[in-house]
This record gives sequence, structure tokens and C-alpha cells, in this order.
Amino acid sequence: MIRGTTSLIAHIGYPTFAFKSPMIYNPYFAQAGVDAVVVPMGCQEPDYPDLLRSVFRLTNILGALITMPHKVSTVALLDEASTAVRIAGACNAVRRGGDGRLHGDLFDGEGFVRGARRKGVRLEGASALVLGAGGVGSAIAASLAGAGVAQLKLFDVNEASARGLAQRLRTHYPQLAVDCAGRDPEGMDMVINATPLGMRDGDPLPLDVDRLAPGTFVGEVVMRAEMTAFLQAAQARGCRIQVGSDMLFEQIPAYLEYFGLPPTTPERLRALAA
Amino acid sequence: MIRGTTSLIAHIGYPTFAFKSPMIYNPYFAQAGVDAVVVPMGCQEPDYPDLLRSVFRLTNILGALITMPHKVSTVALLDEASTAVRIAGACNAVRRGGDGRLHGDLFDGEGFVRGARRKGVRLEGASALVLGAGGVGSAIAASLAGAGVAQLKLFDVNEASARGLAQRLRTHYPQLAVDCAGRDPEGMDMVINATPLGMRDGDPLPLDVDRLAPGTFVGEVVMRAEMTAFLQAAQARGCRIQVGSDMLFEQIPAYLEYFGLPPTTPERLRALAA
Repeated sequence: MIRGTTSLIAHIGYPTFAFKSPMIYNPYFAQAGVDAVVVPMGCQEPDYPDLLRSVFRLTNILGALITMPHKVSTVALLDEASTAVRIAGACNAVRRGGDGRLHGDLFDGEGFVRGARRKGVRLEGASALVLGAGGVGSAIAASLAGAGVAQLKLFDVNEASARGLAQRLRTHYPQLAVDCAGRDPEGMDMVINATPLGMRDGDPLPLDVDRLAPGTFVGEVVMRAEMTAFLQAAQARGCRIQVGSDMLFEQIPAYLEYFGLPPTTPERLRALAA
Repeated sequence: MIRGTTSLIAHIGYPTFAFKSPMIYNPYFAQAGVDAVVVPMGCQEPDYPDLLRSVFRLTNILGALITMPHKVSTVALLDEASTAVRIAGACNAVRRGGDGRLHGDLFDGEGFVRGARRKGVRLEGASALVLGAGGVGSAIAASLAGAGVAQLKLFDVNEASARGLAQRLRTHYPQLAVDCAGRDPEGMDMVINATPLGMRDGDPLPLDVDRLAPGTFVGEVVMRAEMTAFLQAAQARGCRIQVGSDMLFEQIPAYLEYFGLPPTTPERLRALAA
């Protein structure tokens, strides 16, 4: 129930019709008695800088969830950007600091890391192959580096993307071993598909699954189906897996904490989602 | 349930804590299957012009409900203002025309008029004493003039306010007889208290009720109690009355129609209000 006392989380992007966050956050807020609401705000690119500024002057704004097409342009509008934002060059969460300054963070990768940790995966000192150096791949690579992974192998069909990401990772994590030496998963503790492969019928698998060892932890960002063809193939090889929606539901508690709201669990959010 | 397809009605003012509209509109939207939501937006004066502009660039904005302290400053931000807005010098509803221009209207007075009409009061050719020439009194006077009232007597402790309102009414309704000759209700078909008298314990009545004739229709804008002392005294004199909340619930269908939503009734809204 929205009241005059209710705080807003602006969910800004365009188009809005496929937004899922209101149906995940709001049922939880209602059930948990959190006096806040996620509100979809459809905003096109030319209007975005002014909107973001105005939204953060509202007296009842708690934060903003930023989605396409504004994740990249948000970075230039922040007063303070997290390391993940600086590495990925994208931002999907904004809040106002006590000083009135705009702070931005990026929680896609944090969602992946939290999900893996809760499945018992040890990240400190591990090696990971990240397929796809776009927005979500960059976010995952940045969070893995922040979580203590020792070695990252980056692959993208756009080689310059992978090399650019590698360079930014090295700048922020000088101890990290980073290479762009193909997409062979052999010897990797973790493999993550952060490409769009699997979103369309007939997509090829993102790598040669015959090269996957059973001990490899395999993650997916595609959410078209809970079990993508890639995850099915990995599971058939004996690999432990993480589905795309785990990353989604694992990152929401991170947003809530960032916006100063009480902690919760992905299980609770998932059970309540409409 | 807020979705990505949900349209927004921005309820803009400061402070927001006492806002009632979300608890009236939103339960109705939910029950009627209207995919829209009223969202409180706390906005202080210096931030308001930019906010209003940005809000009306949102792709899913349906309209805005404007409340204190922005009702007056809104007028200068409109591209088109209704006659009621121009007479009252205040605006509480804004929508975007198909041409992208901002249109503003004011429905307090319309709520009063609709309520009176539905009680069988004939307004065409009638006389009315409006007590209070502030925002709500001006709105009621403007709507009564628009509804065909022939004679208006205006009273305000600030005489210049009443005279200014009289002048603006004459400009827009040259046929209307308007005077500022005190607050004697004798001979008036209608008397409306649009002053704050009745909001505090010990307030005097807004006029000498002994002068009220039983045939007079007496309206009230104060909503502190359903039956204010003024309405009780009028009822004791045999007058038909209209309570303050009638004006509130009668005006909401007018807003909904203004924003392009399906018609509804005050009774339905009242039954669902939280």
C-alpha cells in the first residue's frame, strides 16, 4: 500500500514493458512491511540526465535501478563510482550519499558471486573463464576479481572488447592474472556464459562442452529458460551449475542493502515474486 | 500490482507524509483493473520546475496531481490553463496534450459542483455566498460560475483577496453578478465555507448561522470531522448540507477522466479507499 510516507526506488529505462523488478521487489516490500515501492519510469536517452538529477532531488527517493539504454551513460553522471562500475563502464544502481552526491554501483556480478558462494564454490585463488566481455560479462569479471579470483580468462568475439576489459581489470587488480587466450575451459575452476548465446533457438553453445571437466562450476546469465542448452550439456558432463535467475535473485538483496533497506534472502524474494 | 506496463500519476508536493490520494486512487485502480498508480513525489520549491518538466517527458506518465506548495507556481509552467486555473491562479492537475504541451486544470470546485448537482441542487441561475477567497474558495467560485450560477457574493477577511477574485470572475464571466458585500447569507441559495474555520478547536463559525434560511444549501470544505460545527448548526436550521469529503470524492472521477481513464463514481472510490 503506497502512502504519503512511502519511499521511491525509481526503475529507469526504455522501453519499460518488460521490466521485472517491480514484480519482484514490491510483493516483498508489501509482505515484509517495508514502506517503499519500485516505480517504472520510461525515459528516453535525451531526457535522462535531467530526469536522474530531478529524481535525486525528490525528498522521498531511496535510490534508482538503471537499465537499458542508460547503464553506460549513467557513469558520467555519478559523483562516485564503485570499482565494478569503473571496470565495466556501466552502472545499474544509484543512491544519494549523505553529502548529496550521487553514488553508483553495479550488482550483476555481485549476484553471480553471491550465488556461487552460497553453492559452496570457493572463489579465493580460483580460475575463471568469462565468455562475453559486454555489460554483464564485464560486471561478472569485475566482481570475480573483487572476490579474490586469482586468474581470469576473457573471451569475446569482439577481441578488442575482451582486451579492453582485461586492461581495466589489471589497472584495478594488479595481482590478478588476466589473459585473452581463447575459450578453452580446460583447467578452469569456473566457466560463465555471459554472451547472448542461448537466447534464440538454434544458437550454438558458447564453447566446446566436450572440453568441460566435471569439477568445473558452470554459470549462465541467459534466462530464457531455467535450464539452457549450455547448462544441460554442462550438467550432463557432471558439472555443478548456476542458472541465470539465481544471479538475478542473488543480486536483489545487494541492491536492498545498498539502498539502506533490511537484509533479506533470494529464497524469500523468489517465493514472493509475482 | 505495478508492472513495466503501468502508467504513472505523479502526486507532487512537500511534505508528502499526509498525502491521501495514493490510498484513494490505488485501491480503486487495483480493483478496477486500471494499470496505473499514483506515486507520491516529495519535491521542494526550487526543484519543482525541473521535476515537472522531466516527469512529463517520461514515456509512461499519465498525469500529475499537484499539491502544496506548488499549486500556484504550476500556473506559470503550463502551456494551456483552464478557465478555473486562470481565475483561481492555481492548478492541481496537469496532463500532456497530444501535441506535447502541458495542460493544467483545477478540480476542487468541480468536486463541489458535482456533489451539489448529485444532491439535486439546481445551480443554473442560483445565488451563492462563498466564504474564503483563498485557493479552494477561488476554485469553488470559478466552478460555480462555470456551472451557471447567476450571482456570487464573496467574502474574505483579506478584502483585497475577495476583490481580486471578483474581478477575475467578471473578466471570464461578464454576465455574472459578483459582489463583496459582507457575509450575510440572507437570500442566498447556497453558502459554502471555504475558510479554514473549523480546522481547530474553538474556531468561531464562519458566519452568523441564525441568518441561515432552511432552504439554503450549505457546503463545507473542512474535513477535520465529517460533521463540522458549522454543518451541525446548518443542519439544525433545516438546511441541506454537503460535507467536505464529498467534494474530495466527487472530484476524483473528474481527475480520472482528465487523465483519460474510464469513468467511475464517488461511491465506488469511497467504498474502496484505504
